[in-house]
Amino acid sequence: MMRPEDDGSLGQQYKRAVEVAKVLHGLCKRGYRVMLVHGNGPQVGQELIRSEEASTKVPMTSLDACVASTQGTMGYQLELALYNQSHALRVATVLTLVEVAGDDPGFKTPTKPVGPFFTALRARDLAKHNKWQMTEDSGRGWRKVVASPKPIGVVNIGAIDAAMSRMDIVIAGGGGGVPVIRDSNGRMSGVEAVIDKDLTSALLGQLLGAQMMVVLTAVDHVSVDFGKPTQRRIDQMTVAQARLFLEQGQFPAGSMGPKVQAAVDFARTTGRPAAIGAVTQVGRVLAGQAGTRVVAD
Amino acid sequence: MMRPEDDGSLGQQYKRAVEVAKVLHGLCKRGYRVMLVHGNGPQVGQELIRSEEASTKVPMTSLDACVASTQGTMGYQLELALYNQSHALRVATVLTLVEVAGDDPGFKTPTKPVGPFFTALRARDLAKHNKWQMTEDSGRGWRKVVASPKPIGVVNIGAIDAAMSRMDIVIAGGGGGVPVIRDSNGRMSGVEAVIDKDLTSALLGQLLGAQMMVVLTAVDHVSVDFGKPTQRRIDQMTVAQARLFLEQGQFPAGSMGPKVQAAVDFARTTGRPAAIGAVTQVGRVLAGQAGTRVVAD
Repeated sequence: MMRPEDDGSLGQQYKRAVEVAKVLHGLCKRGYRVMLVHGNGPQVGQELIRSEEASTKVPMTSLDACVASTQGTMGYQLELALYNQSHALRVATVLTLVEVAGDDPGFKTPTKPVGPFFTALRARDLAKHNKWQMTEDSGRGWRKVVASPKPIGVVNIGAIDAAMSRMDIVIAGGGGGVPVIRDSNGRMSGVEAVIDKDLTSALLGQLLGAQMMVVLTAVDHVSVDFGKPTQRRIDQMTVAQARLFLEQGQFPAGSMGPKVQAAVDFARTTGRPAAIGAVTQVGRVLAGQAGTRVVAD
Repeated sequence: MMRPEDDGSLGQQYKRAVEVAKVLHGLCKRGYRVMLVHGNGPQVGQELIRSEEASTKVPMTSLDACVASTQGTMGYQLELALYNQSHALRVATVLTLVEVAGDDPGFKTPTKPVGPFFTALRARDLAKHNKWQMTEDSGRGWRKVVASPKPIGVVNIGAIDAAMSRMDIVIAGGGGGVPVIRDSNGRMSGVEAVIDKDLTSALLGQLLGAQMMVVLTAVDHVSVDFGKPTQRRIDQMTVAQARLFLEQGQFPAGSMGPKVQAAVDFARTTGRPAAIGAVTQVGRVLAGQAGTRVVAD
């Protein structure tokens, strides 16, 4: 719901929400029921900047709380946009906590930078007092780095399932979900981390018995040998083929990698197809006429 | 979830959430199913301060978006606290948009101050560029004032009802709900306003067919002639009696007034009892052994 050229205002975000709403409304008219998982990178970035800028006046917030916050604000924009497509659409946004393992290897070496750039002085202060892990970002300043642990369970799956039974569109798992861990006594607590939204999508699709998972991106399809003379588009690949491509490092970790991994997860665990394609072509992607399909072996 | 003596940190808010969670868990053990509406005044205040402090770096947010945001963050804290009371509790937080009338008289003369105090210069700037209505607050600076319109419909009632059918506790309508209006074409948009959470509770209770509405406060019961030698506690009053007290100005507009009005609304529209009492005595309030009960005529 935000692109690099956008100004980041709520008005601009609403316009992006309308683009998505048109696509989803089209699907509902054709009889689909939709579970929507959205990202929240730029929005969480804004929240963390606000928290830092106001830190001398009000207590700082935390990354997990910011994910919960953006589930509210982005669900709100999406719902407005959807109702304005059709008053008859039944839409729900369900707060979604997603469990990750406290011993996920990601926590040992956090790599995902989030939030504002800090001076060295402020970075040292935050590392000391807030126990944040900080990294210098190629001369632009210091940033907080967090883990990107694997989603292992959806705390609110019962509520999402109840909503799906009566709604046309359920918005859940936004930003990959609010990351929580359980200690050895089962006590649950939030943790500052970023869960990949595509992996959360795959898990939700699996738990809900979805007929198909579609990962919507800015590109039309998945390619291998990207940028080389041998580059070619993939219309369909099996789980085994996709895994081989992943092992070969065909898909960058920060972009197409998790999307292909999520498609593999869904196809492998459910036996049903997953697809990756452009948001503007969603109808054709669902029909197998566009995008890249991942099918069980 | 925040008291005047609290520092406003997430850690402190979680402790308050635990206090509420204990009470709600106790009710669930006795077989109640609970729909919880919480306030969000201090939390929205924090959000608006963050928005102002970061306004030169990221676009400002709006009050309606902040309500959506606090539904996420406060639902998150409450859910954690509830799961940590009992892993078996089934809890859902549903984003709640509440409709108000575009011609609600509140919009003509906004009276509710929200957010930070501004200098006269900044206040003039915000009034001019953001079309905010500003008021001088007894020498402490300038503040934004917004309307407090009456809730007339709950956009997400279907989703809340679906959640209630499968959950022990549903958190919805937080902060009174995200205020939205419809124009003559039915187009829905957000509006910067504060909906009274007790009036939203009454409406939700009515729409869901709740057996009872309980307004939890810091005081044990409702009193008339408060602070006078003739002061007396009310154990029970009919809708007609409560209305007479309201007309007499027995209950201040900013505190007990809307609570009694909400109890009246619920008892009048449903024929079922409403009660007002202390959060620590909720069991006795439900049993009619504590607090103040409002019953249909």
